[in-house]
Amino acid sequence: MRDLISTGLRRVNGRVEVLDQRLLPGQEVWIDASTPQDMEIIIKNLQVRGAPLIGVAAALSLAHFAQTGASQKEVEKTAQLLNEARPTAVNLMLAMNRLVFNSKDFAENYSAEKLMAQAEELFDEDVALCEKIAENGSALVEDGDHILTHCNTGGIATAGVGTAIGIIRKAHDQGKKIHVYVDETRPLLQGGRLTTWELEKLGIPYTLICDNMAASLMASGKIDKIFVGSDRVALNGDFANKVGTYSLAVVAQYHNVPFYPVAPYTTIDFSIETGKEIPIEMRKPSEVQGVAGFFSGEFQEVKWSPEKSAVYNPAFDVTPVDLVTALVLDTGVLSREQLQAGLLKNEKK
Amino acid sequence: MRDLISTGLRRVNGRVEVLDQRLLPGQEVWIDASTPQDMEIIIKNLQVRGAPLIGVAAALSLAHFAQTGASQKEVEKTAQLLNEARPTAVNLMLAMNRLVFNSKDFAENYSAEKLMAQAEELFDEDVALCEKIAENGSALVEDGDHILTHCNTGGIATAGVGTAIGIIRKAHDQGKKIHVYVDETRPLLQGGRLTTWELEKLGIPYTLICDNMAASLMASGKIDKIFVGSDRVALNGDFANKVGTYSLAVVAQYHNVPFYPVAPYTTIDFSIETGKEIPIEMRKPSEVQGVAGFFSGEFQEVKWSPEKSAVYNPAFDVTPVDLVTALVLDTGVLSREQLQAGLLKNEKK
Repeated sequence: MRDLISTGLRRVNGRVEVLDQRLLPGQEVWIDASTPQDMEIIIKNLQVRGAPLIGVAAALSLAHFAQTGASQKEVEKTAQLLNEARPTAVNLMLAMNRLVFNSKDFAENYSAEKLMAQAEELFDEDVALCEKIAENGSALVEDGDHILTHCNTGGIATAGVGTAIGIIRKAHDQGKKIHVYVDETRPLLQGGRLTTWELEKLGIPYTLICDNMAASLMASGKIDKIFVGSDRVALNGDFANKVGTYSLAVVAQYHNVPFYPVAPYTTIDFSIETGKEIPIEMRKPSEVQGVAGFFSGEFQEVKWSPEKSAVYNPAFDVTPVDLVTALVLDTGVLSREQLQAGLLKNEKK
Repeated sequence: MRDLISTGLRRVNGRVEVLDQRLLPGQEVWIDASTPQDMEIIIKNLQVRGAPLIGVAAALSLAHFAQTGASQKEVEKTAQLLNEARPTAVNLMLAMNRLVFNSKDFAENYSAEKLMAQAEELFDEDVALCEKIAENGSALVEDGDHILTHCNTGGIATAGVGTAIGIIRKAHDQGKKIHVYVDETRPLLQGGRLTTWELEKLGIPYTLICDNMAASLMASGKIDKIFVGSDRVALNGDFANKVGTYSLAVVAQYHNVPFYPVAPYTTIDFSIETGKEIPIEMRKPSEVQGVAGFFSGEFQEVKWSPEKSAVYNPAFDVTPVDLVTALVLDTGVLSREQLQAGLLKNEKK
């Protein structure tokens, strides 16, 4: 059995392990996730996050379970359990559908080896998608660029190099001297905790800022380009991403800073025409009333606002296509004009 | 001796006390600040903050010191100590100059009673300035308005009702049904900690948001007006305020949301022509790398980003006059066009 190694997921000597993302950046602890029962808990606990990574990790542990001698029925039941670990992560559902629920092979010709081959295929595909995105996007990066990014879109959110961060990494590997400004990304601080950690590991120079500081950086000419991820793209090029992305897009347009969302084709929702149809998940008030997580080496829950504060806490916002300079896909780069002309339809496979 | 009472400073039965702002919103603790030696420490510790309030508080404790029998020389020496407690707070310097260093009375005709009368005058003047601002600004507020504000500009930053929050308070008192959206104001969270606390105390409905969520609220038509404070206004109407203000102004213009900075005439810097001349204070990285303060009932220092993260942490940003709808002053409201025509010059007294 070959080894599979990514920044946040690995299979070495037949053991599946994930990097515990709750402990980052303070501690780097790999935890065993070989059984799907463990994986289910790990996913629920957010110890592994990033929609593509969750799908691949769940598939690997399921196939591993089959190879240890579980019956077809046990595997199917376990796939259902994993499927429900995080109902909003589309990739988890896609992975379980592909391996089990929508698989003719699974129904008619079950074998643990075939299941594992499919899980490995998922891993490889995700790596390849990231690589293509990185190639396409890095062509937009020039030597000396100062790049702003939001949230975490890197090697711990995918099996590959990531999406927006994958582009940054590729440009850096190409020898381009770049500097990255990292939005901390309130309320969950994926920028302050995870993107900083990844960039430090990659040796890419960065500066951490609060989300509200990006505008004054742009005003003083310190940002050349913005790359952000995407959670869902509508057919007209509108897209949803981590809250704060829309604000960046508006401020970028005011300052004539090119603004690029980045996504694999799997992120395009061919069933919706515009961003208005994208449902926005509202999350709990406590995330905004303070912070919670493993910080300074221990789990802390800190609340700084009054207990009864009403809170507005959308996890995402929608950026209209007219604020997009171009969308970077695995298949290429589509300009605003091309998106507005409806070219995204052609991405359907 | 009459009582003086404000939200964050009071003199009752001859004792000067301040509300410990570091403990808010968790605990409301009044601490004795009758001696200037105590006051100096309290100012340094940020237990009292808000430029106007610091000036008034220092003046009161100095006059109190004089009345307990201190010699003229001791008072002068103590004024120097207070003056240096926070070198950037202009009002502190203005207050000490007025009572001591630039005072003919102090030099030629010293009396503890006169000093106290001047300190009380300072308190009363600040109350009156806030009241005039509130009257002028509240005329812009309509019944049913949803108002966004940033940072803390209320009764604990001044001896009166505050500036931007003073307007909100006055509109509420006038019976207008308003709802306030409160930017948490990273990194120091003056919105999440202090503005929420003040609005709750005043019984004004509010919703707390992260700074990066204001844009999606504006996109969905949920913000009618924005009122923010100001730390320094240039002669052409450009102004500096807490970091994040400029971002709000850009996003407000994109959504056609009226954007009003608010300031007493004392905030106008008649020595500078444009905002480009306003120096921006850079603060320490640890503020952005995590949070520190009295949260959840105890002092906590939480760090979530890598120890070595480079950080950009400007305390303020500058908003150009072309993004301003109108400037609300104690003397009236000046429109963008009036500001651009140079009418601020007439405010010099």
